[in-house]
Amino acid sequence: MKQPIGVIDSGVGGLTVASELIRQLPKESIIYLGDTKRCPYGPRPKEEVIQYTWEMVNFLMTKDIKMLVIACNTATAFVLEQLKEALSFPVVGVIQPGARAAITSSRTGEIGVIGTEGTINSRAYVDALKQINSQITVRDLACPAFVPLVEKGIVKGSEAYQVVRESLGQMKVYNDMDTLILGCTHYPMIKDLIQEVIGSTVTVISSGEETAREVSTILGYQKKLYQGQLEPQNHFYTTGDVEVFQAIASRWFDQRVDAVSKIDLHSVKSL
Amino acid sequence: MKQPIGVIDSGVGGLTVASELIRQLPKESIIYLGDTKRCPYGPRPKEEVIQYTWEMVNFLMTKDIKMLVIACNTATAFVLEQLKEALSFPVVGVIQPGARAAITSSRTGEIGVIGTEGTINSRAYVDALKQINSQITVRDLACPAFVPLVEKGIVKGSEAYQVVRESLGQMKVYNDMDTLILGCTHYPMIKDLIQEVIGSTVTVISSGEETAREVSTILGYQKKLYQGQLEPQNHFYTTGDVEVFQAIASRWFDQRVDAVSKIDLHSVKSL
Repeated sequence: MKQPIGVIDSGVGGLTVASELIRQLPKESIIYLGDTKRCPYGPRPKEEVIQYTWEMVNFLMTKDIKMLVIACNTATAFVLEQLKEALSFPVVGVIQPGARAAITSSRTGEIGVIGTEGTINSRAYVDALKQINSQITVRDLACPAFVPLVEKGIVKGSEAYQVVRESLGQMKVYNDMDTLILGCTHYPMIKDLIQEVIGSTVTVISSGEETAREVSTILGYQKKLYQGQLEPQNHFYTTGDVEVFQAIASRWFDQRVDAVSKIDLHSVKSL
Repeated sequence: MKQPIGVIDSGVGGLTVASELIRQLPKESIIYLGDTKRCPYGPRPKEEVIQYTWEMVNFLMTKDIKMLVIACNTATAFVLEQLKEALSFPVVGVIQPGARAAITSSRTGEIGVIGTEGTINSRAYVDALKQINSQITVRDLACPAFVPLVEKGIVKGSEAYQVVRESLGQMKVYNDMDTLILGCTHYPMIKDLIQEVIGSTVTVISSGEETAREVSTILGYQKKLYQGQLEPQNHFYTTGDVEVFQAIASRWFDQRVDAVSKIDLHSVKSL
């Protein structure tokens, strides 16, 4: 069916998920909504994250989406189950796909997870991994320096390398750790640096890539992949500044992103 | 829920899928049925494959399975869609997971597929890949020498290496091919040799590993993963010789497999 896939995030991080969806599912149309104005969600109380996430979902429901991707770790941790219960179309978060891919990849059963302080403190990845295999050893580490780095566009060169090396230093003592989950949607932008620092024996899992894979799995399983000949149409909405969003999106997508509109979530009525 | 996952195959090849399910989902119980007596299905007429597959499914339905995995390329190609329509629980085949994983992995868009002559001639992988991304270039090759090799237990050493090198020779001209799908459930047993011959720049995708990953995705998505404390119980059924099956299973699983029973599918009544 020609309906688009909806993607929500607290800001721009989820664009790494959107770009993977466009790469892996080139026939599908994407509608992305980043709540840039109220970003980040991490430090906010749970009730506020739930309210803001629902405001985003209510907006996307006016666009007749066939599936919802919560491309935000905080919103996934707090609202995924509630949205799955409430909505009639499939809902996928970013945490479980990364956890499942790590279990598929790991031979030693020792898995690392890096993310923001909020995500690491929530223990959402630990729970997702242990739910599938209680014998897994999880090594987790907050890397608060990475998001500011990526948002400033410093994704290569010696400054970025120094920050990554210092942040990941204590991960390097885990000799049996053979898999590392990038538990933040910003981190794929510095995946090469992370791989270089952590070493070639560790498989680095990008949750964006894995989330797109699971969207493909579920749409395929439910026979909802688009099979027609129409060109895909992607559109991006932000609650913040259109030009700033456009600049970041164009840099991350490595091509000019024009289809960006500003939206005021308070004007959206709940369906 | 404590219900087992059912796995069917025309013979022993699907054991590579079963072992991946056990590795990736260690809390789940598996019931495996290999129709060893009537193996292989590849050369049989479509109607016969459909009938035999339904006989296996009817047997597993007496075991109250919560999900069905068709760990056989021929049966997947001919019966997957019919089974998905007819059964009330999820059904997963081995072709689509390998195709999706290859699309996730490939950066060049040039993907190789190797399998039995039946699988390659069916073009099932080509169709599965093109359905998702019509721009993908597929390089496919039948490797009829591999299954006899693996069933004889010759999975390393110079003889095996020679066979793999000669079979894959013509694949090596495709310089842009960065991903190779093992489109036969026997091939993971010689994955290391295939990787050595095809070179380290090509990602080798094992459909067993990817099928288990998608079983995890769908059970997780549907909240059907077992969350209790009971130890898993795995049981294997064969329509052929129990000792031969046991010997192959023990060798492939690298541990003695005792829970093997013989079954006569003609005595199973359709539900």
